[in-house]
Order: sequence, then C-alpha cells, then structure tokens
Amino acid sequence: MQTKDYVLEFRVYLEDTDAQGIVYYANYLRFFERGRSELLESLGIPMGEVARPDCRLVVYEVRLKFRRPAFLGDRIEVLTSMQHASEYRLTFRQQIRRRGEDEPLVSGEVDIVAIDQQGTLKELPAIFGPARP
Amino acid sequence: MQTKDYVLEFRVYLEDTDAQGIVYYANYLRFFERGRSELLESLGIPMGEVARPDCRLVVYEVRLKFRRPAFLGDRIEVLTSMQHASEYRLTFRQQIRRRGEDEPLVSGEVDIVAIDQQGTLKELPAIFGPARP
Amino acid sequence: MQTKDYVLEFRVYLEDTDAQGIVYYANYLRFFERGRSELLESLGIPMGEVARPDCRLVVYEVRLKFRRPAFLGDRIEVLTSMQHASEYRLTFRQQIRRRGEDEPLVSGEVDIVAIDQQGTLKELPAIFGPARP
Amino acid sequence: MQTKDYVLEFRVYLEDTDAQGIVYYANYLRFFERGRSELLESLGIPMGEVARPDCRLVVYEVRLKFRRPAFLGDRIEVLTSMQHASEYRLTFRQQIRRRGEDEPLVSGEVDIVAIDQQGTLKELPAIFGPARP
Repeated sequence: MQTKDYVLEFRVYLEDTDAQGIVYYANYLRFFERGRSELLESLGIPMGEVARPDCRLVVYEVRLKFRRPAFLGDRIEVLTSMQHASEYRLTFRQQIRRRGEDEPLVSGEVDIVAIDQQGTLKELPAIFGPARP
Repeated sequence: MQTKDYVLEFRVYLEDTDAQGIVYYANYLRFFERGRSELLESLGIPMGEVARPDCRLVVYEVRLKFRRPAFLGDRIEVLTSMQHASEYRLTFRQQIRRRGEDEPLVSGEVDIVAIDQQGTLKELPAIFGPARP
Repeated sequence: MQTKDYVLEFRVYLEDTDAQGIVYYANYLRFFERGRSELLESLGIPMGEVARPDCRLVVYEVRLKFRRPAFLGDRIEVLTSMQHASEYRLTFRQQIRRRGEDEPLVSGEVDIVAIDQQGTLKELPAIFGPARP
Repeated sequence: MQTKDYVLEFRVYLEDTDAQGIVYYANYLRFFERGRSELLESLGIPMGEVARPDCRLVVYEVRLKFRRPAFLGDRIEVLTSMQHASEYRLTFRQQIRRRGEDEPLVSGEVDIVAIDQQGTLKELPAIFGPARP
C-alpha cells in the first residue's frame, strides 16, 4: 500500500523558534508527527490508537535533511505519504514546505514499528491494512 | 509542613530560547517542574508516583512574575519550597535565579492537587505527609 | 480599548501530552501564545513585531487555573481578548475549551509589557493603539 | 580532528515524556543538542557562538535510530564525539544511554554546517580548528 500525499497546514509560532531566529531543528519532528497523525486519522486510525499500552507505535528510524530554515509567522505545509516497508514497518516520506513554494525546507523519512509492553517488536495491527495489497 | 529551599542547577540550551533571543516564557514552567520533581524525590517520593493512573498529581493554579529574562548558556538555579495548604493542596514557592545573583529572574507559586481517573479531587496521598505536623 | 474574543482552533498532538496521559501544563502557555499572536495579527500587528531587538514584547505576569485536562486528539479552542491596562501594559484574558463545550479547561490572564535592548520598560508601541480610546 | 566522547548526564522529566509513557521522539534531538553544546564549550567555543547572525551553525542532516525508549525519572547520558567531515561540515556521533547500561537507547549522527545571513553555506569558522590536523 502506498498513500497519496496528505497535506497539513499550520503556522510557525514563537514556541517553535530559537535564539538563532529560526525554527529549532527538533521541532520539525514535532511537525512531521502532526502530519503522520492526521494522515493516519484520515485512513480511519484514531490518534489514541498509537498510545495503547499493549501495542505502541513508535519511531524506529529517522533520516532528515534540513535545506533551508522556516521563520516566525511562516505558513507551513507538511506533506506526508505512507507505505508498508514490511509486516513490521511503515515508512513515511515527509516534507515541510513554505506555503506557495515548491522546494521543501526539510525532507525526511520516518520508520514506525509496533512494540508490546516489554518493548518487543510486534506485527503491525491489522488496522494498518495489508503489507502488500 | 514547610520544607526548606531545594536548589537545582542546570543550563539554558538552544531548545529553551526563542526568536526574541531569550528563554521562551512557557519553559520556565518546565524549569519549575524539574525543581518540584527533585524536591519531592529528596523527600522520598519517586518521580513516577505523580503519574499513577488512579491518582495523578496535577497543577491546579499558577501565579508567575517574569522580572528579567534568562539567556542562552546561562547557568540557572531553581529554588523550590513546599507547604501543605490543606489536605487537598500543596503549594510550591519557586524562583529561577542566574547563578551568583540574588534577584530572581522569575518567581511564582504553583498549587498541586490529586485527582482520580475520573478527574475528581482526592485527598493527597499519605506519602506527602500530614497536612499539619 | 477592549477587543472581542478571538477564537483559534487546533488539535492536541502527541508532542503536547506527557506520561500522565494529559496535556503537559506548560503547553497551555504555548497554546495561549498562539491565540495572542493570531489576535494581534488580526489587529494588523505582524508576528515578527514582538521580536524586534529594540522593542521586545515580553510576558510580565501570568495567572492560570487548570480546571480539567485536555487529551490526545482533542480539538481545542483558545479564546483571547485584549485590553490596555495602562500605557505600559496589555492584559490578555484567555481560555482553552474543548470544541463544543462551554466550560473552559484552562483559564488565565497574561500581562505583556515592552522592553528595550537593556531590558528597561518602555511605553507600548503606537501600533497597539491608544491606552484609552 | 576527531574528539573523544564527551559525556553529559541529566534526568528525564515529565516535560520530556508523552502519552505513550516514554520520552517523545523529538526530545532526543534536544538531548543531542545539549551534548553538542557542552562538547563545543569544552573545546573553547562558547554557546552563543552558534547563534551569531552573520554565521549561524545549523544542522544539515540527521540520521537517528531509536532502539529502546527512555522513561520518566531515568538518568540519561549523552555521549558525543565530533570530527571534521570537510571544511564545510562537522559530523557529530551521538548516543543516549541509561546510566549504568552499555547498550544505547538512541544513536545517531548529526551534520552541522555554517551559513551566513542569506542562508548561503560558508566555510566553518577558524575557531573550530583545521579540517585536517
């Protein structure tokens, strides 16, 4: 399964910036996670689903490129698409763009896996659909 | 019961600042909470204790004065003392100071109460000691 | 001058919550600041205006009451109104509500003042309008 | 130039956790940045140096693996080493470990570059030493 790009728009507030006058680098991961949450919800997977004690969906791997910074007040879009990498792993491709621009400010890939209460890897819950359609 | 001032020292990192070049105002509440957690642990109350599902210790009221800002790289002290306001409420008096200075940058009071799973107010757990010694 | 309530809606994401399963208390101040920024922009004051080196708009005092918690996935509204307390101080009255509910989860007042590069109090910039209409 | 591992220890507070009961994934990047800041300062590079308007040191690339989660109250160590990848790029190798454990919870690499006010890539300032010793 490979979804289309889900687009979520929001603004950069003072909370997101740092003393360099730009968005603090860790906050792009917050932005990415907003995009993934809304994409999943658009597929029928409620947000609370990721935080079930017996099956937590956690990030396993992140690869990020920061090309240009975002600034206070910017209107930002997160573009998110998802595909099954295996029965155990979802891969999200994500970009942050300034509204009206084509070139991404930040782009990256985020791999998600499911773990049980002991932290052991589990197959992804059926709600995420078949690994191969 | 009225404790002495517990002093916790740490630094201001880029994550704490904003595009105004100073510590972002909400982050002083993060600093305050670090101070309360360490004070409670010094009294024998482990940190996880505040997050028990059947009895969550939550903030009920906050009063804060921001006198002067803290900056990137500053060495900061949080001073925290605690007293029982009643069987239901703990009041923490807290200050943020730059190391080596007397005048606080930020000062405030934080009231904590205990709630059950339904959000109903509970008496404070016995571990917090008697309201009146 | 006394503005009407400005309403800003957004969602609670994983980034906003803590191990108690509720929104972390400092994050309501982030939410409040989003509301103030959008209210000011609706009055013609761009967001970057608050971060000019020669005249920073900073929070001077905060009074907050946390009545009930917000949870992961909640749709939240920040209601914000502003009035001139004096030529030196703006007072914002703010509330966080769950969409469709009347009772606020969190309510508070935030006082803002202007300071120069040395941290000295300044009169509020003319862009904020007359203290008394 | 290749530095030894710099070790910085601190604790996980409520602010660092999320509704999954573990440290929120973006916060490990905050932890990494604390480690880099202290390593640089130990080499004679003050923290404010990274935020000079004419020469900002910004993150260009991040690769992260999250192996096991950290929990509320954990005592955490960040291990950080640095090497010149070129005249334009510093590469930091970083790990988060629970105190007393050998296996890292999170490991990663962070590439830093210098940019001028227009966002154009610059050679790294001389203060970072020669690319090849």
